[in-house]
Amino acid sequence: MKIIKYPGKEDWKEILKRPALNTESLNDTVKGILNRVKTEGDKAVLECEATFDKVQLASLAVSADEIEEAESLISDDLKAAIILAKENIETFHSAQRFTGKKVETRPGVVCWQKAVGIEKVGLYVPGGTAPLFSTVLMLATPARIAGCKEIVLCTPPNREGKVHPAILFAANLAGVNKIFKAGGVQAIGAMAYGTESVPKVYKIFGPGNQYVTAAKQLVSLRDVAIDMPAGPSEVEVLADQSANPAFVAADLLSQAEHGIDSQAVLITTSEELIEKVCAEVESQLAQLPRKEIAAKSLDNSKLILVNDMDEAISMTNEYAPEHLIIETANYMEVAEQITNAGSVFLGSLTPESAGDYASGTNHTLPTNGYAKAYSGVSLDSFIRKITFQEITSQGIQTIGPAIETMAANEQLDAHKNAVTVRLNSLK
Amino acid sequence: MKIIKYPGKEDWKEILKRPALNTESLNDTVKGILNRVKTEGDKAVLECEATFDKVQLASLAVSADEIEEAESLISDDLKAAIILAKENIETFHSAQRFTGKKVETRPGVVCWQKAVGIEKVGLYVPGGTAPLFSTVLMLATPARIAGCKEIVLCTPPNREGKVHPAILFAANLAGVNKIFKAGGVQAIGAMAYGTESVPKVYKIFGPGNQYVTAAKQLVSLRDVAIDMPAGPSEVEVLADQSANPAFVAADLLSQAEHGIDSQAVLITTSEELIEKVCAEVESQLAQLPRKEIAAKSLDNSKLILVNDMDEAISMTNEYAPEHLIIETANYMEVAEQITNAGSVFLGSLTPESAGDYASGTNHTLPTNGYAKAYSGVSLDSFIRKITFQEITSQGIQTIGPAIETMAANEQLDAHKNAVTVRLNSLK
Repeated sequence: MKIIKYPGKEDWKEILKRPALNTESLNDTVKGILNRVKTEGDKAVLECEATFDKVQLASLAVSADEIEEAESLISDDLKAAIILAKENIETFHSAQRFTGKKVETRPGVVCWQKAVGIEKVGLYVPGGTAPLFSTVLMLATPARIAGCKEIVLCTPPNREGKVHPAILFAANLAGVNKIFKAGGVQAIGAMAYGTESVPKVYKIFGPGNQYVTAAKQLVSLRDVAIDMPAGPSEVEVLADQSANPAFVAADLLSQAEHGIDSQAVLITTSEELIEKVCAEVESQLAQLPRKEIAAKSLDNSKLILVNDMDEAISMTNEYAPEHLIIETANYMEVAEQITNAGSVFLGSLTPESAGDYASGTNHTLPTNGYAKAYSGVSLDSFIRKITFQEITSQGIQTIGPAIETMAANEQLDAHKNAVTVRLNSLK
Repeated sequence: MKIIKYPGKEDWKEILKRPALNTESLNDTVKGILNRVKTEGDKAVLECEATFDKVQLASLAVSADEIEEAESLISDDLKAAIILAKENIETFHSAQRFTGKKVETRPGVVCWQKAVGIEKVGLYVPGGTAPLFSTVLMLATPARIAGCKEIVLCTPPNREGKVHPAILFAANLAGVNKIFKAGGVQAIGAMAYGTESVPKVYKIFGPGNQYVTAAKQLVSLRDVAIDMPAGPSEVEVLADQSANPAFVAADLLSQAEHGIDSQAVLITTSEELIEKVCAEVESQLAQLPRKEIAAKSLDNSKLILVNDMDEAISMTNEYAPEHLIIETANYMEVAEQITNAGSVFLGSLTPESAGDYASGTNHTLPTNGYAKAYSGVSLDSFIRKITFQEITSQGIQTIGPAIETMAANEQLDAHKNAVTVRLNSLK
């Protein structure tokens, strides 16, 4: 970990810099696979599964039997935990339901918005050593609340052609309609274009490696919407002398274990805290099964000492962290001043892990400073707001002349005429 | 105009197809300009203005004097119309303000969202023969309501180095902070990367030609968010025998005059209406100054006769029009069943022009079928919702064990440990 003391403001940009993301070099490979999926459908996806996931699949779809069987394959403890998490996610996201109100902008001119679920959505859940069933809950639960009619999930199978039962259990619980054994670029292509088995969707959600990220970017240029741009996960802990060093160390480590490119940053007003956190990291790290990954990631991590809380807050808003843990005496006051962050964890008993799994907030969040422009996934991500307007004769007489003037000045006479014919009919 | 009678459902896709959009062939040119702006800043922008807009500018910024002078250069009628429109846009978008509520997902686990304006936004307003001051209002008004602190506007100057006074008046009225004389790719680059004069922004909004569209796509891959993907403007009129043919014709023509690639579609249950609309289009077209553009665009337009209103509604949702005008006897019932559209205009006295200028709804809307996944611009487009969570000792004791179980099953032991150290501290 790098300790940086009292950096000048001119150095913030360099200190807070993320590792450069560049998926452009992968574009040719990714485009090749996408084009094959677009033209050859299932055949291409099955071939890619054989090549990349080393598995010969008879069909892409997960069967009802497999889903049923999954429930018997996972422990009761895990089932109960998944159910608790799903309920909390459901409670929080249900409270985000939008009810538009009618607004009369002038007498006889009534405008409103209506929220409508995106009809078809695609969820991508990466494979690898660990089954990311938490991501299934985070994406499928709000999709279901939003009223999405077709919720498709793609996830790579293991070499035996199986999907982890915890993923199937979570998907079934959260209301996924169709589950397919497909990973990587081929899965993104299948959902973007549709194949014989996999329905074309209108928006694709979920994390993935750099190939998946590149594929999502490419299909988002024309064919389908995506949740948000992706980058390595990151946490910032903002702490003062009141923070518990063991908690801070545990929070930094929980980010560091994600991968060697994960970012963990501590910004603090307390030099003593930095020393204690370093010692705690050392001792906790030794206990971790993933200690090699975490240790590498910690090489890039920064412990930054600043002059006061105002400076800490400014630097935080400049960094715009995906996850922000505020462990200060007056954390609510600090939170009020946070303008750029994905999800914020308040006080000493609110670790990032809580939001990663079970508090109810979403864990799909903007990385790489994108929090300056993007929100995390929420119910909003699964709906569109359609605007409506209804104008009466009084209304068009009130605003019609202004429309005619503006249209004429923009040299759009047919726009003007669409009002004129109506005003004339009322004379 | 093409008249299509009772098409089979298997033909809908082909009938409703938009002209293919492909900006990829422009990418090399566009990347070249973007890279120059990124490395050379103002110098590159000024040189591009000389090359593309044929103007030698001393500086990019519009001066306070120019803004003041603008007010005296436009008519009182136009000023009053712009003020009326701005007020209505303000009323409707102010009603979209978000107030998050705190949700206790479990005892001691409190989660909420807070809306925060995007600090720096960039608005692009194209040049050309007509000054698009309405677009200035549609973008700057919600940006101001959202609390965006820096609202930057770029628009190309004319050959005398001037910006149209109606654009300056609207920008000043709606609360733009900084206006720059820059158009095309160089304007998008300047706002995406920042130059000596133009601040870097976090999100870019606004329409433009295919070069601007390509530039927005390219910068959105990494550097900055954008409002939505772009395509030619389009309207669908959904009408039954009760519709007024003169109004329908005027609405189709008001779309057709935008450009030769604009789409105007009528879907109706009345064969008689089609005949009458054709005659009306003929006679109204003859009166229009832009009749050549409109006539060319009408060549691509379709008048589609369907069997009944259910079919008309299904076809509409399949098309997902940017603008939808519903002129049927029971238009509110029909509106209830619309799931894919940008903005909907209800009844015979609500032309698209009303929403283009002054009803209060936004006119920056998803084209090209993107309404299946995207909303139009609204207050939401200028904010982010940050999530917060605060957990008490009771809360972490309630959900902590579930988090531990889930983290262990995802093989993320440091995530588990971040909870364990806290639970241990409470023992």
